[in-house]
Amino acid sequence: MSYNTFGKLFRYTTWGESHGPAIGCTVDGVPPRIPLCEADIQMYLDQRKPGTSKYTTQRREADAVKILSGVFEGQTTGTPIQLMIENTDQRSKDYGDIAKQFRPGHADMSYIAKYGIRDYRGGGRSSARETASRVAAGAIARKILNDTMNDTRGNTRGNTISVRASMVQMGRTKINTDRFSWDTVSQNPFFCGDPVTADIWASELDAIRKNGSSIGAVIEVVAEGVPAGWGAPIYSKLDTDIAAAMMSINAVKGVEIGAGMNAAILTGEENADQMAPGPNGKPVFQSNNAGGILGGISSGQPIVARFAVKPTSSILTPRRSVNEAGEAVNIITKGRHDPCVGIRAVPVGEAMMAAVLADHMMMHRAQCG
Amino acid sequence: MSYNTFGKLFRYTTWGESHGPAIGCTVDGVPPRIPLCEADIQMYLDQRKPGTSKYTTQRREADAVKILSGVFEGQTTGTPIQLMIENTDQRSKDYGDIAKQFRPGHADMSYIAKYGIRDYRGGGRSSARETASRVAAGAIARKILNDTMNDTRGNTRGNTISVRASMVQMGRTKINTDRFSWDTVSQNPFFCGDPVTADIWASELDAIRKNGSSIGAVIEVVAEGVPAGWGAPIYSKLDTDIAAAMMSINAVKGVEIGAGMNAAILTGEENADQMAPGPNGKPVFQSNNAGGILGGISSGQPIVARFAVKPTSSILTPRRSVNEAGEAVNIITKGRHDPCVGIRAVPVGEAMMAAVLADHMMMHRAQCG
Amino acid sequence: MSYNTFGKLFRYTTWGESHGPAIGCTVDGVPPRIPLCEADIQMYLDQRKPGTSKYTTQRREADAVKILSGVFEGQTTGTPIQLMIENTDQRSKDYGDIAKQFRPGHADMSYIAKYGIRDYRGGGRSSARETASRVAAGAIARKILNDTMNDTRGNTRGNTISVRASMVQMGRTKINTDRFSWDTVSQNPFFCGDPVTADIWASELDAIRKNGSSIGAVIEVVAEGVPAGWGAPIYSKLDTDIAAAMMSINAVKGVEIGAGMNAAILTGEENADQMAPGPNGKPVFQSNNAGGILGGISSGQPIVARFAVKPTSSILTPRRSVNEAGEAVNIITKGRHDPCVGIRAVPVGEAMMAAVLADHMMMHRAQCG
Amino acid sequence: MSYNTFGKLFRYTTWGESHGPAIGCTVDGVPPRIPLCEADIQMYLDQRKPGTSKYTTQRREADAVKILSGVFEGQTTGTPIQLMIENTDQRSKDYGDIAKQFRPGHADMSYIAKYGIRDYRGGGRSSARETASRVAAGAIARKILNDTMNDTRGNTRGNTISVRASMVQMGRTKINTDRFSWDTVSQNPFFCGDPVTADIWASELDAIRKNGSSIGAVIEVVAEGVPAGWGAPIYSKLDTDIAAAMMSINAVKGVEIGAGMNAAILTGEENADQMAPGPNGKPVFQSNNAGGILGGISSGQPIVARFAVKPTSSILTPRRSVNEAGEAVNIITKGRHDPCVGIRAVPVGEAMMAAVLADHMMMHRAQCG
Repeated sequence: MSYNTFGKLFRYTTWGESHGPAIGCTVDGVPPRIPLCEADIQMYLDQRKPGTSKYTTQRREADAVKILSGVFEGQTTGTPIQLMIENTDQRSKDYGDIAKQFRPGHADMSYIAKYGIRDYRGGGRSSARETASRVAAGAIARKILNDTMNDTRGNTRGNTISVRASMVQMGRTKINTDRFSWDTVSQNPFFCGDPVTADIWASELDAIRKNGSSIGAVIEVVAEGVPAGWGAPIYSKLDTDIAAAMMSINAVKGVEIGAGMNAAILTGEENADQMAPGPNGKPVFQSNNAGGILGGISSGQPIVARFAVKPTSSILTPRRSVNEAGEAVNIITKGRHDPCVGIRAVPVGEAMMAAVLADHMMMHRAQCG
Repeated sequence: MSYNTFGKLFRYTTWGESHGPAIGCTVDGVPPRIPLCEADIQMYLDQRKPGTSKYTTQRREADAVKILSGVFEGQTTGTPIQLMIENTDQRSKDYGDIAKQFRPGHADMSYIAKYGIRDYRGGGRSSARETASRVAAGAIARKILNDTMNDTRGNTRGNTISVRASMVQMGRTKINTDRFSWDTVSQNPFFCGDPVTADIWASELDAIRKNGSSIGAVIEVVAEGVPAGWGAPIYSKLDTDIAAAMMSINAVKGVEIGAGMNAAILTGEENADQMAPGPNGKPVFQSNNAGGILGGISSGQPIVARFAVKPTSSILTPRRSVNEAGEAVNIITKGRHDPCVGIRAVPVGEAMMAAVLADHMMMHRAQCG
Repeated sequence: MSYNTFGKLFRYTTWGESHGPAIGCTVDGVPPRIPLCEADIQMYLDQRKPGTSKYTTQRREADAVKILSGVFEGQTTGTPIQLMIENTDQRSKDYGDIAKQFRPGHADMSYIAKYGIRDYRGGGRSSARETASRVAAGAIARKILNDTMNDTRGNTRGNTISVRASMVQMGRTKINTDRFSWDTVSQNPFFCGDPVTADIWASELDAIRKNGSSIGAVIEVVAEGVPAGWGAPIYSKLDTDIAAAMMSINAVKGVEIGAGMNAAILTGEENADQMAPGPNGKPVFQSNNAGGILGGISSGQPIVARFAVKPTSSILTPRRSVNEAGEAVNIITKGRHDPCVGIRAVPVGEAMMAAVLADHMMMHRAQCG
Repeated sequence: MSYNTFGKLFRYTTWGESHGPAIGCTVDGVPPRIPLCEADIQMYLDQRKPGTSKYTTQRREADAVKILSGVFEGQTTGTPIQLMIENTDQRSKDYGDIAKQFRPGHADMSYIAKYGIRDYRGGGRSSARETASRVAAGAIARKILNDTMNDTRGNTRGNTISVRASMVQMGRTKINTDRFSWDTVSQNPFFCGDPVTADIWASELDAIRKNGSSIGAVIEVVAEGVPAGWGAPIYSKLDTDIAAAMMSINAVKGVEIGAGMNAAILTGEENADQMAPGPNGKPVFQSNNAGGILGGISSGQPIVARFAVKPTSSILTPRRSVNEAGEAVNIITKGRHDPCVGIRAVPVGEAMMAAVLADHMMMHRAQCG
């Protein structure tokens, strides 16, 4: 229900501004006795952190996470886990110029309309910096999923849930899925599964970066190993919660499940994923237009979601706007920014998918045992 | 939090199956002393109800709504409003064939995976019939919005919020927005704002219907008159809740706000909606790629959302599938179905938008007075 | 949580006014495949229904419950269960006199202060008639508890959870616990476990009834068989939710767990329930001042709660008050009322305890498997 | 509602263990532009902090609060406020003896039953140390209430809401209400409004402390200035939420509103608070058995709640118990503890009342404008 809390049973609440002393989140509802240490979380934060290539903002943040509660002798206790990440490389003076101006495409104007006050330094609460907290919470969600399927306390059931994402489109350039491999995803700064496209993007983004411009992107998140039966009809549909999760990420303007917007052009014959008898009595699907979800409930197929990230509005080209006094101004945003924020949204999309799945695993266990 | 409840402060809970005695919803949190009668709700239900043209299912339902509580002497009392719609034209025997079979693209298989039981008659709870309850709840949401802006108890403030939707694409055929008018939307059975496209759709859908096939569609919902400042950052973003609302509608596979998935191909210069000083001190925007929402908060521009509806999987062409025993079967779905369920999703999309806005109006008033 | 919804995972939402066409509730989150029919619910409603003895209101209501959704072929389906009870014996004209007057001790004045409107007929939404919906929901909660412990689908685990309540004090007359037996509880119109006290109450209440007066009472609810480990620390404590559940019942002014208010006079030595090793490795407690709950979590001991019900303010003695115009008036409430509403609160207290336990069973299963 | 979150719109989430690096809370939903600094919170923390007299635990904690987010240039921004209090005087070795033993009356046994793990140092999450976070959140709630009634941004409306508590009973010794004054409450270490009783308590508690024993208490919380109309019927009753709030405090076993458990002995004539016409058209009540709440909604009278705090089970007298292996043990708890934890519960009770009222103020504003 709340403004800064995500999830029903696996719930996390984030806090903190881009240029305050720290950001963080409280992760509540975590099952007990799951092994957890800071390194388990840090590895995902390192994927999202700024300054790792010339294609992301040059702000330097270690994004070092501290666990302040909820873990005892290396295991979760079932009580709330507080994660804190200190801010170290704020350059707030970069933002003095825009303290009273509304940057086009930013939340400056709408925050003032709502609250009558805003922490303008680095975007304050509306900064993408908040997504570090999501990635941290998502790392714990992964531990829960892994523990559920595989019992990290001893018994191995041989099942795993993997949650992976990649960038599949930057500007007008889409990957060729025939060349896609997950191995390739980790081998370039774009989380791109197609090596040829990765090279194209590199030169395209170089040009955009040098122009002080920016560009949009599409991210695809895939969860494999999710058993059939998670989710719920009507208002707690798995796809409903995924849509909310992805749309809540900064700069996201569209969310798709399976065939997505393209479902509009399909006929019933094309769209319906046919089934055949499979091993273990489970049906084998012939296609996955449903994106692994039928009637809001997982079908056992891979869950596939995509989301579009708009280009950041922090660009060097002057844009016409107004200031708080209602006067016309021209704005150039000079701070350190991402030419394609979609890149750093990849680990965030994974984290949100993991959070939704951990929540629904618990919701399912609650109702259906 | 719950499976069958939508909303935070304006909350409705739906119940009922396609072939049970009735369906309905409980609408909670409604402000007091708003004039309300059954006719206020019925006019919207009549837009969604089946059997009104040859392009929708031939099931005949009056969809007559009864108010069982929460209204006294023609006004809301602030207590829960129970709305009930009796089912009258169930033909459950049509469904006997599929009692033990999983229709491809349907929730049959996933419901059994989750619950081990399902009411197979007409899809039971997974039927689009549930959306009648949404339309009924949405009619009350509209009354709240209207009352807020305009005070239906006497004072007229001269402001209104309109929530309107239309079908903008069927299959591969999109409308020409240059020919669009809201007047046209009410003059054809497709809620189509472009008269030329409406004629094309008529012939295309005739062919699809005669083939026993079906086709997808895209619906666009536009809310005008929403003041700047509604919504909230991070996890109660206006766009997050709209995404969840639309994705929760049966058969929806994608949701877009403003530029939507197309935001991926825009540059920062193209995407950022420039502002100029306007009358009343409010900025005038030069474009609306943001879809009226910045940082999760309304900007004062029209709020624009789109969603894609997949074609129904209830088609006459045999499809390969499995039954509950895990055996291969061929399935033809013989019941009465919609060749383009997108048509009847138009009033549902409007209702969901109205519900989100009424909820956020109250959330905003709670925090910001 | 919403105005008219109780519970987190086992959630029910009630609706309806005392003199409207019907009342009812939607019960959401129920596990699937639990056998359920109307008779399972009716047996508890019959314990609460009015007109069964001269000690309760003479309003005659069959309180016949109808299941409108969520049950298929005799089993729950996991979808929302709608329960409806039609009102049949409204005498709204009895209430014409008080339409514009505020009865002392009633919600008349506060409803007008909040909403500016009220359905004055029979108290409208504030009537104890709403508690019939609680009893109906509680009957389903019992089925869930029983199914959890004992698997009503076949396997018998030999464990049961019993939830029982009795009236332990009426006015100044308390039962003698040495004479208490649960068998006696069902053998008198007071749900009194002490036959001697039951006779005393009979004559005391006769006098009160003839005087047109009313009297308060204390109810004790005991849940046996609850395993250790249900509940949660801090804000979802089992005792927190029981306190909320009981205090939400009409006319309740105090709630106690275990030693209750009396804990104030105990020393640490007296209060701490000592433990000794017991069979099955479970500790055996030497006393139960904790009321079966330690740190918000069940200990395996019986859970014991008590609540005080104030006397109804609907009495024949004239009381000074004001009307909506702010003028002084004398009020006599002539409708049909309960001389001791505590009596009919007994099955309501049981129902609320069952609802809390079913909710916490699912919450526990969600987090701890 | 979640395990570690309190409230609907004014929501705070607490985290941290007694002997971890820090504790704290995230306060969400705070209205914007309310002046707030650390000193505003510290003054209430200082009332609760340990080691201020010989009658409370000798643990020395500065309980210095830091605001990490949500405040900008001295004003709230409407975004989440993170409050952190570092732990400085843990003596975890004091607790080594009880690492594997279940202290009677403590949550040791039930935590293990639930989670299979517990942070035994100082009670971990079950420590009363968590209540410091409540007091901090309550300080912000007071600011909201004050701002609402009086507009701290400039306009003075001349109304205030005061939330005050005092200890009214320790062991068997109750205060004499004829001698009560709020001035006296701040002049002794017991928050006692009756100077004669304060002296008696001093000598009684000295003896208890020297014996290594402990004693229970009753706290009364009074909120004055609350306008009529806050609260809501049925499951969001003001008294329901107060009951939950107070019962969620460590060691509380009973909660009363107005006449409380004593309502059981009243007749309808005695109980119903008569009204007479008052100035401003508001009724004047002749008594306050209702404790300021009718039908779950405030009546304009002072809101009066009481709660009983059990004696701490950390005593020097050996008690029989069991250990994790199920063996019989004798336990003496040697750490630093409060002979009457009720004393430090006084500011906690105030904080919880303030939190409930701030929440309901916003809930009321949301629905009724």
